[in-house]
Amino acid sequence: MLGPGKVRLLEEIAEHGSISAAGRAMKMSYKRAWSLVEEMNAGFKSPLVDRARGGAKGGGASLTPEGEAVLAAYRRLEEKAREAGSEEIALIGAMVAD
Amino acid sequence: MLGPGKVRLLEEIAEHGSISAAGRAMKMSYKRAWSLVEEMNAGFKSPLVDRARGGAKGGGASLTPEGEAVLAAYRRLEEKAREAGSEEIALIGAMVAD
Repeated sequence: MLGPGKVRLLEEIAEHGSISAAGRAMKMSYKRAWSLVEEMNAGFKSPLVDRARGGAKGGGASLTPEGEAVLAAYRRLEEKAREAGSEEIALIGAMVAD
Repeated sequence: MLGPGKVRLLEEIAEHGSISAAGRAMKMSYKRAWSLVEEMNAGFKSPLVDRARGGAKGGGASLTPEGEAVLAAYRRLEEKAREAGSEEIALIGAMVAD
């Protein structure tokens, strides 16, 4: 329901203010980016992404407070996981081909 | 290079002794399972999966010692991450739709 790809998409939407620009930054089709946003918005009690309607700029998108909270929590989780699992990460990393 | 899908595939190969049975357990095509194994074997200094050749049983597969080490390290990493990030996991979990 949430993984590295969707979280990065949230981050890019926050940065670019648009789903299509976020998708482009990830070399992802607009359709794919949109579909991931729909999945996230449906999968959480409150939408994570606010898709502004129409207007001169043809709409834009931003994170809702819930989207910002989820993004921040996920990034903290990754940081804590990297710290707690540093031994295992090093072990696996040392086995990876150059 | 390694994520939940590949790690589960390693685990299923260890359990079933065959790439095709492992793929079936994950509702994955044989082709897909085989291709993930090739990626893992090429991505690590030593192969993670040993594909036994031909024979009466038409070959089978098992984890190499390196494959077992990577699988075990990944599972320990997940466990440590769940422990260290329990607060964030709970926060995100509470926001997920019922």
